[in-house]
Amino acid sequence: MTAFAARAALVQPSPIREFLSLATNPEIISFGGGYPDASLFPMAELRAIYADLLTPANAQTLQYTASDGLPRLRAQVAERLTRDGMPCGPDDILITQGGQQGLDLVAKLFVDRGEVIVTEDPTFIGALIAFNPCEPAYASVPMDEDGLDVDALAEILRTTPQVKLIYTVPDFQNPTGRTLSLERRRRLVELAEAFDVTILEDTPYRELRYEGTRLPTIKNFDTTGRVIHLGSFSKILAPGLRLGWVLATPEIREKLALLKLAADTQNGTLNMRAASAYLDAHDIDAHIAGMLPAYRRKRDLMLAMLSEAMPDGVTWTRPDGGLFTWVTFPDGFDSAAFQRDHLIPRAGVLLVPGAAFFAVGQRPNHARLSYSGVPDDRLVTGVRAMGDLLREALG
Amino acid sequence: MTAFAARAALVQPSPIREFLSLATNPEIISFGGGYPDASLFPMAELRAIYADLLTPANAQTLQYTASDGLPRLRAQVAERLTRDGMPCGPDDILITQGGQQGLDLVAKLFVDRGEVIVTEDPTFIGALIAFNPCEPAYASVPMDEDGLDVDALAEILRTTPQVKLIYTVPDFQNPTGRTLSLERRRRLVELAEAFDVTILEDTPYRELRYEGTRLPTIKNFDTTGRVIHLGSFSKILAPGLRLGWVLATPEIREKLALLKLAADTQNGTLNMRAASAYLDAHDIDAHIAGMLPAYRRKRDLMLAMLSEAMPDGVTWTRPDGGLFTWVTFPDGFDSAAFQRDHLIPRAGVLLVPGAAFFAVGQRPNHARLSYSGVPDDRLVTGVRAMGDLLREALG
Repeated sequence: MTAFAARAALVQPSPIREFLSLATNPEIISFGGGYPDASLFPMAELRAIYADLLTPANAQTLQYTASDGLPRLRAQVAERLTRDGMPCGPDDILITQGGQQGLDLVAKLFVDRGEVIVTEDPTFIGALIAFNPCEPAYASVPMDEDGLDVDALAEILRTTPQVKLIYTVPDFQNPTGRTLSLERRRRLVELAEAFDVTILEDTPYRELRYEGTRLPTIKNFDTTGRVIHLGSFSKILAPGLRLGWVLATPEIREKLALLKLAADTQNGTLNMRAASAYLDAHDIDAHIAGMLPAYRRKRDLMLAMLSEAMPDGVTWTRPDGGLFTWVTFPDGFDSAAFQRDHLIPRAGVLLVPGAAFFAVGQRPNHARLSYSGVPDDRLVTGVRAMGDLLREALG
Repeated sequence: MTAFAARAALVQPSPIREFLSLATNPEIISFGGGYPDASLFPMAELRAIYADLLTPANAQTLQYTASDGLPRLRAQVAERLTRDGMPCGPDDILITQGGQQGLDLVAKLFVDRGEVIVTEDPTFIGALIAFNPCEPAYASVPMDEDGLDVDALAEILRTTPQVKLIYTVPDFQNPTGRTLSLERRRRLVELAEAFDVTILEDTPYRELRYEGTRLPTIKNFDTTGRVIHLGSFSKILAPGLRLGWVLATPEIREKLALLKLAADTQNGTLNMRAASAYLDAHDIDAHIAGMLPAYRRKRDLMLAMLSEAMPDGVTWTRPDGGLFTWVTFPDGFDSAAFQRDHLIPRAGVLLVPGAAFFAVGQRPNHARLSYSGVPDDRLVTGVRAMGDLLREALG
């Protein structure tokens, strides 16, 4: 018999992965994946860029390159982050295979078996999947409308030995859509200082703000190199290029770069050159600004439809940005069973049942809904069908 | 102070990585990297393919896709492997971020801290780098001109507890260029059966045979799913796309796919679609056959120059394919010191000192030379300069 390593037991199929395959069925109305809207990708610009890059004189564009990422692209990312209040240079940046790889590398660098990662409650399921092979223990911090509860965090840090990382998605969190308040960002860094813990700040949705005031990143308050900042091109350019970044101190970045080399040698040279050429030739901030109205409208439509269609006893978050709203059903309601028995077979609607988003103490009466990739008419149909089935299920 | 995980101590800068940065200096004659010849990449074909893919109707080409790889590409890889004597289907294939990611995923799946990986002696340095984060112990098997010594392997398996993996590059091994004989391939599988161990067969150079008879893969002799087979498009299409594959039993492949999802979500959609379109529209075997004469000529030139320029007491392997020859200097000679003190400062020539290729008991009197990416005149100049400096150093 095959004897796997102990970590293999912690690697289980995720509900999101199952749904990704169902979601390719055109009959299905999927609020499942956190997909950006493909119609907003800058196809014409990228087409021209790839054509420019793929010429015999440019053969190096298909060759191996530096494992920590194309220097020009690292410089461009550093420039953007500097403008976002995080002064840094190209040598502070590591290019990763999407934001997900940053999670994998950081956990590998910091977490030995049994050491504790503190997550938000609920938290990004992909982060749990990335962390699990390191065999961590978890503690989780309750959230409210202002993000994770820093007093509860302080208590956890006081009472939990071996905490190595605090993982947070401060902007339009996955799955709740909530944003960590300014005051709590500051406090979070103070707590990490006081308890000698590293913060892993993950910001894939940061640029997708539809209302309210942009807040400084947590890294912005970092004076001692205790915050590792992750970002991604997936939502601002295209996920199919698999490009993300890590900003960290030289010591940490160097170790992460070695782990990156070990994991997959490097990101694809061609895609890095294409992203770099895009940033040179085009104003990505204008591109992002151009996308926001479409996403804002989707969010507004989702919130309006939820108000119209959801029965009493069902609540949801009102995100200022990002791709998700988090729906809470009455206590005791099992969203996974509801989806399996009613939502999919009777309405062809997909959501992501909430249980898997909890690192500790899974609660079944939640679901994550993504509004970004669903055409308007199908969004309306899907939410209405869900409301009807819920009314029936809730009696 | 930052407290890293224990595995961080095993992640150290590799000599190859240092050289990759030096190698971008146009003054340097580099026999260091295992780079394919960029002038042989099918640029025109790929240019047309990317132009076809990057149209508004094809926006999904930049979207997320299945984490185990594009189904069509998996089918194409399965077809190629079936023709190579390994009957399989798309669901047996996992697409990876180059061959390197296969090494990372397989070690994660099988190896707990302190368990043993058996490697060839010497072995591919990138594999050691990939395995180290799992904190394995190593045992290594001596090689001769027919590859790893299976009798020595049997003795290791008899006397070493907790062996989980045997790692081998059977075709034109990195770093020695040696090929495992047919009889030993068969015996290797028998031994793995007898001692209940998994074989990890890594074949990045398999298609680059310049003479002699193609041998069946080790996987070809596998009747019980004990061999995991890795391959890569890096040397037959282009490394800058970062595309490789794993062939394994459904149970193992499914676990590896979950670890892949955890590590980086998926390979880049665009690059997978491009490789798939290439395989649909073009005859990659004809492309490979077209590249072989150029590589064969390089190998011949390297071997001829070594014969001409090396002083007595220096020997080297005569590879039937692949990118490398392995040079052995007299006992006690330190190739790293020679490179640092003489070869680089006085001749601007790079090789890869051999010590780091040994999993156990590093021996400094070797070097790996790659001939694939060096223009003829510079190859001649570089080997001659190396010969002159060696003659001086060896007295």
